[in-house]
Amino acid sequence: MSKLDTDNVYWLSTAPQQELRSMAKMQKIRLGMIGGGEGAFIGAVHRNAFGLDGQYDLVCGAFSRDPSNNESTADSLGVEHSRTYASWEDMLEKEAALPEQQRMQVVSIVTPNHLHVPISVAAIKAGFHVFCEKPAGVGLGEVKDLQDLLHSTDRLYGLAHTYLGYPMVWQARHMVQSGMLGNIRKVFVEYPQGWLSANEETHNKQAKWRTDPSLAGGSGCMGDIGTHAFGLAEFVLDDAITALCGQLYTHIEDRQLDDDGAALIKTKKGATGVLIASQVCAGEENALKIKVYGDKGGLEWHQMEPNSVVYRPIGQPYQVFRAGLGQPGLCDEAVNRCRIPGGHPEGYLEAMANLYNDFANAVRSESDQTSSKASGVPGINSGLRGMAFIDAMLASSESDTKWETVSPVGTE
Amino acid sequence: MSKLDTDNVYWLSTAPQQELRSMAKMQKIRLGMIGGGEGAFIGAVHRNAFGLDGQYDLVCGAFSRDPSNNESTADSLGVEHSRTYASWEDMLEKEAALPEQQRMQVVSIVTPNHLHVPISVAAIKAGFHVFCEKPAGVGLGEVKDLQDLLHSTDRLYGLAHTYLGYPMVWQARHMVQSGMLGNIRKVFVEYPQGWLSANEETHNKQAKWRTDPSLAGGSGCMGDIGTHAFGLAEFVLDDAITALCGQLYTHIEDRQLDDDGAALIKTKKGATGVLIASQVCAGEENALKIKVYGDKGGLEWHQMEPNSVVYRPIGQPYQVFRAGLGQPGLCDEAVNRCRIPGGHPEGYLEAMANLYNDFANAVRSESDQTSSKASGVPGINSGLRGMAFIDAMLASSESDTKWETVSPVGTE
Amino acid sequence: MSKLDTDNVYWLSTAPQQELRSMAKMQKIRLGMIGGGEGAFIGAVHRNAFGLDGQYDLVCGAFSRDPSNNESTADSLGVEHSRTYASWEDMLEKEAALPEQQRMQVVSIVTPNHLHVPISVAAIKAGFHVFCEKPAGVGLGEVKDLQDLLHSTDRLYGLAHTYLGYPMVWQARHMVQSGMLGNIRKVFVEYPQGWLSANEETHNKQAKWRTDPSLAGGSGCMGDIGTHAFGLAEFVLDDAITALCGQLYTHIEDRQLDDDGAALIKTKKGATGVLIASQVCAGEENALKIKVYGDKGGLEWHQMEPNSVVYRPIGQPYQVFRAGLGQPGLCDEAVNRCRIPGGHPEGYLEAMANLYNDFANAVRSESDQTSSKASGVPGINSGLRGMAFIDAMLASSESDTKWETVSPVGTE
Amino acid sequence: MSKLDTDNVYWLSTAPQQELRSMAKMQKIRLGMIGGGEGAFIGAVHRNAFGLDGQYDLVCGAFSRDPSNNESTADSLGVEHSRTYASWEDMLEKEAALPEQQRMQVVSIVTPNHLHVPISVAAIKAGFHVFCEKPAGVGLGEVKDLQDLLHSTDRLYGLAHTYLGYPMVWQARHMVQSGMLGNIRKVFVEYPQGWLSANEETHNKQAKWRTDPSLAGGSGCMGDIGTHAFGLAEFVLDDAITALCGQLYTHIEDRQLDDDGAALIKTKKGATGVLIASQVCAGEENALKIKVYGDKGGLEWHQMEPNSVVYRPIGQPYQVFRAGLGQPGLCDEAVNRCRIPGGHPEGYLEAMANLYNDFANAVRSESDQTSSKASGVPGINSGLRGMAFIDAMLASSESDTKWETVSPVGTE
Repeated sequence: MSKLDTDNVYWLSTAPQQELRSMAKMQKIRLGMIGGGEGAFIGAVHRNAFGLDGQYDLVCGAFSRDPSNNESTADSLGVEHSRTYASWEDMLEKEAALPEQQRMQVVSIVTPNHLHVPISVAAIKAGFHVFCEKPAGVGLGEVKDLQDLLHSTDRLYGLAHTYLGYPMVWQARHMVQSGMLGNIRKVFVEYPQGWLSANEETHNKQAKWRTDPSLAGGSGCMGDIGTHAFGLAEFVLDDAITALCGQLYTHIEDRQLDDDGAALIKTKKGATGVLIASQVCAGEENALKIKVYGDKGGLEWHQMEPNSVVYRPIGQPYQVFRAGLGQPGLCDEAVNRCRIPGGHPEGYLEAMANLYNDFANAVRSESDQTSSKASGVPGINSGLRGMAFIDAMLASSESDTKWETVSPVGTE
Repeated sequence: MSKLDTDNVYWLSTAPQQELRSMAKMQKIRLGMIGGGEGAFIGAVHRNAFGLDGQYDLVCGAFSRDPSNNESTADSLGVEHSRTYASWEDMLEKEAALPEQQRMQVVSIVTPNHLHVPISVAAIKAGFHVFCEKPAGVGLGEVKDLQDLLHSTDRLYGLAHTYLGYPMVWQARHMVQSGMLGNIRKVFVEYPQGWLSANEETHNKQAKWRTDPSLAGGSGCMGDIGTHAFGLAEFVLDDAITALCGQLYTHIEDRQLDDDGAALIKTKKGATGVLIASQVCAGEENALKIKVYGDKGGLEWHQMEPNSVVYRPIGQPYQVFRAGLGQPGLCDEAVNRCRIPGGHPEGYLEAMANLYNDFANAVRSESDQTSSKASGVPGINSGLRGMAFIDAMLASSESDTKWETVSPVGTE
Repeated sequence: MSKLDTDNVYWLSTAPQQELRSMAKMQKIRLGMIGGGEGAFIGAVHRNAFGLDGQYDLVCGAFSRDPSNNESTADSLGVEHSRTYASWEDMLEKEAALPEQQRMQVVSIVTPNHLHVPISVAAIKAGFHVFCEKPAGVGLGEVKDLQDLLHSTDRLYGLAHTYLGYPMVWQARHMVQSGMLGNIRKVFVEYPQGWLSANEETHNKQAKWRTDPSLAGGSGCMGDIGTHAFGLAEFVLDDAITALCGQLYTHIEDRQLDDDGAALIKTKKGATGVLIASQVCAGEENALKIKVYGDKGGLEWHQMEPNSVVYRPIGQPYQVFRAGLGQPGLCDEAVNRCRIPGGHPEGYLEAMANLYNDFANAVRSESDQTSSKASGVPGINSGLRGMAFIDAMLASSESDTKWETVSPVGTE
Repeated sequence: MSKLDTDNVYWLSTAPQQELRSMAKMQKIRLGMIGGGEGAFIGAVHRNAFGLDGQYDLVCGAFSRDPSNNESTADSLGVEHSRTYASWEDMLEKEAALPEQQRMQVVSIVTPNHLHVPISVAAIKAGFHVFCEKPAGVGLGEVKDLQDLLHSTDRLYGLAHTYLGYPMVWQARHMVQSGMLGNIRKVFVEYPQGWLSANEETHNKQAKWRTDPSLAGGSGCMGDIGTHAFGLAEFVLDDAITALCGQLYTHIEDRQLDDDGAALIKTKKGATGVLIASQVCAGEENALKIKVYGDKGGLEWHQMEPNSVVYRPIGQPYQVFRAGLGQPGLCDEAVNRCRIPGGHPEGYLEAMANLYNDFANAVRSESDQTSSKASGVPGINSGLRGMAFIDAMLASSESDTKWETVSPVGTE
């Protein structure tokens, strides 16, 4: 239980965590960005996120292969032309040549998926820490190679599984780990979206590359959001999904990758459940939800209302744990990811900012760097898990052997 | 669109449907009950339901094999001793011998499952209409036999799939049928309960027989509530589930039947989705939900807040359709199942009362009786569908062929 | 704490309360109805409510002054013509002349407001118990006279303040009474409706009489729904509202009575708060809500989702208490007003049925009849409180003395 | 309707507004902060907010009168010691002496209330733009003086009425302004908090100064959060509250200022309603809500779920408008305050960041500076309105003239 929980912390009150977090840092971390030029939306999201807590300075970038875009992006962000590079190769080389106190420390990769591994590998070899937009790569093999490289270096690698930065996801995990639910039996995780309900790929650039196997990898929906559902389940359960029985579907003519699917799942510790991910659930936004049940109680968390966790202990009225400084019942890991007292909502950008903060703390802490892992930030293992999940889904989906016909009696 | 929708109907205002419903009846229908003695809870629910609208008189019963219970139940319900019978066989025989204007017209069966078919068959042969608690029986074979019998008679048969009496379930079906969702692609239906999270069967009589294959049939959870989820999906979709790929589980030592399971499903018209039913979702009450998505929009209905349907048309803010007389946008089938204006909630007993009302209307209408089917009331086909579902679930669950191992990379 | 709370009661399980309630009665109570002919909606609601639990037989009625309506209503309800009366005066006289075991015991009054007192007085003098639709009358004076009469008789008088039949309203009151909230400081109660947002009275009969002072009394909105909010607050708080400072408004040209208003309020025990009632809150259904706060915690209840009470204890996550047999944390008074386990919603008709049940119990119990008060049913005191509230609202609304001008600075 | 609404903007898709916003800026704005040292929580909130979009550089500060705190705060924020000042007077003087391209442009004031006007006045006279935490000051007189000063200068003044930065507050205002609700009749605004339910002021520094008239001004609860409710109502209605009839209360022994109150209110355009603000609603967080009703429909917005506006048009199912890029039905003003597509929640810090962004745009735009008003940012008029509100509340609360006794009938 957090020390804070017993204080009378409230709006405008002293927030010890906040102080400690602030006071611990002495100097901003110098960050460079690859990708994220005009029109590349995720770059702006990362900039919002690392800007929020003031821990980073954006000192250089290779924002776009298009020189004009590259330059105007740099201007708009206040990046000097001398450190605005024509290519990521150029950037890694020239930054490495700068004096240590001047060159970038962390590179943030926000390109399309197929470049994630090549840039990560080169950056690490050049001596930089890497914070990469998910997925880690486009195939299990290349991500394993990256893992091998990371094992041989002290450079840090973080993966932007943003949902794992939400305080109440940590709280949910804590509830499982601390036994509040008893032995876990069931997990249901779903991520319905509706944005690919029609043929967007003919006119929407983002839809185009996300449905193109050469850029996105072997799976569409499962790679894009199924991995989020999968990663959330493994994180909250603190358990590994070891087997699945699933089916993928594609609903739009000429679409090259799956846009929908579901699987029965089993975990190492013996829980079972269902994972659903779909991009053709018309009208849905980003309705990622998880429900977990053990022999003592259940819990529920929704990404679209991320500041609550519902807890249902057997034999008691159900309870709602709420995010925020000074809120009752929160674990330290949750409190440390809140900035303001309860009732003033924090959201998605704050969740990603939490990952950037933990990454910053790891960069500043020499001792952690031997592990290539920033505490609190999803790393290469998360990347590998996603690749393993996609491979299993693709394989299972090809088999029809378990499908049974339901007799048509009563329908004739 | 209902004529009512354009009127200024509100609280205390004239409700034409209500009048028509009332005015159409001239005499109460004489009903007898088999089962439902003290301690047999579902009998009381049926009595609440058929009492609500005053269309039935309970004139006779065989409430319990225990003479004392039988008699005191009759007393408490105001049933004359001369028409309180020691056994259901006795009741059917003696009631059939009474003058037509005096003898019961409808028999309501609220016994354990294994007696549903035997009593239904005997009652129909004796000339009575049957309104039976679900499930129709404990096996596909016996229910088919009952279907055959019904095909050869003009007696009516109704099955208490209570959820299909909710107005907004009809509204959801209407939205699908009328094309408001476009071509249906996805359906997700779930029925999580928590009441069997521990070993209840040692001390709770209801849990005991529901987990006993000789009384409940070959499936526990799927038979009990999986069939509700299945029936709700087929009803709302107006489509048949033709194939499934599922897995059943049992979580309590020595429990004889499944208490949990899930399946990937496919429908005749080409939709796919997931069905979940569980009785070990600790803390859940009766959280039956359905979500349907087509190429034009989606909808969502929850049994625990049954007076709303969420409608998500692509490209518009989402909308909430609300039950009640005079509420905008409701189809006739929904309005006709409401008693009061919006904002005064109707619930589960009202839903079952709607089935009893539709059954009463059919009993009164000679013309309908040739079809052995009461319009608006689930009948023998619903019973058969449930049996077919259970058989397919049991069969699919035995196969492990489609399960794929998820590589342990990243977890080591 | 209810004995039930510790049992494993669930769906289909034994419900001891239910049995006791059923078993205690030996004979249906003979009820007559005044008003409630075709087109008079509230009559149907009362019939649903007293039919639900099978405790009453409708044996006679004076449903309408219009002979044709009167007769057809009787037919539709199965009331014999010999006991269908042309006027309420006729009915009271002739029923009183019938043998004791045959004549009606309770008269249910569902006429317009201005007849409530005259019929109640005559019925009580004729020896009948009275269950009357609210309000008790159209003025404090006549209701006081009725109170005086009741003090001199053993006849029972019940008033259909339906919301006070909800289980979770009793639970909320229990939470206050048992100290779970500490000393009560604040109460906020609101009842927004939207149905009178336009000029309905020109074409909607119900709107017409409700806005006619000669039939409805001196207040429109406050008399109709303000009294519900007032009565709910006094009931939940177990306290009397002793002073108010309010303002009434009328929004439609030519409307004769208030359609909206609000007041600051104070209670005898020292709580303060706000009461709002309005019939011009466009789009609102019957969104009656109450929030109460003490020095240890708060609670919240909404009529439109009546099966939950939110409880907010200081220093703990907030909790949601849920209606239903076997639900944790419920007081006996709440459990005894539930019919089915949690998760199968009960609603408005069940709430009114609870009042009819308690009234039936009182009718059957000789000992209670000396008090002219049926335990659990609002009585003449509730009627008086409503009249006192209306008078105070009308008086306060005429004064402008406390209104202060807000300086126009910053708006120029 | 926003141009964006018709685009296929979605997660990761091109966001034109975002680009334009980014591309328009060429250089970060140099900002100095007064207040906000260790333990002064609101300073951190402001830093989160202006950091989020990367438009500002924090170049100097006078964070604390305590030299050690001042210095360590500067260190933690990366502010040079040469521009860390011992007092705000010192900072204004020395910054003004710096070369134009180096000195701060905007001063952010995050001190206790009683210093807001003195610093604002001095800063404006010294040539700086001012962005001030609310309230504008501690009395109407001093804020009027500040207004006079602003009328004579081209310096910009912004007031951190953070809730007015939420996109859906702008959407609600748009719905009113565009006539979607028709003529406005009713407004209900409430701000319940629970944090002052006990005597916090003895041990919580924030509670201490907020209940001290010499630091906080003449009102506690009304000054602190009542002004938020007041300002929100005037903003959404686009109307002025011209009169009120209210009452203030203090619930804790020895507390010097009100901690709770409510008022009946009237607006210039003829709407009426209720305003509630309380800090003793035990268990409540920051449950600011507003409901508005016109003759065509109603709307509702809740601060704790800020990304939705409920719209209730008469005669249609109710609708929910959702924040986010590409969401249907949003006005430009709402879309321009969103960063990411719907379903990824933005919250309180983003709302304040929106104010800082609009202020930045105004700073960059020469033409706007003649008005002393940054478009989209609450200014001195908002400050004056708050002062006028507090004065009227205090005056009205002293009068008991409108209070009426509710007769004790029925309670004896």
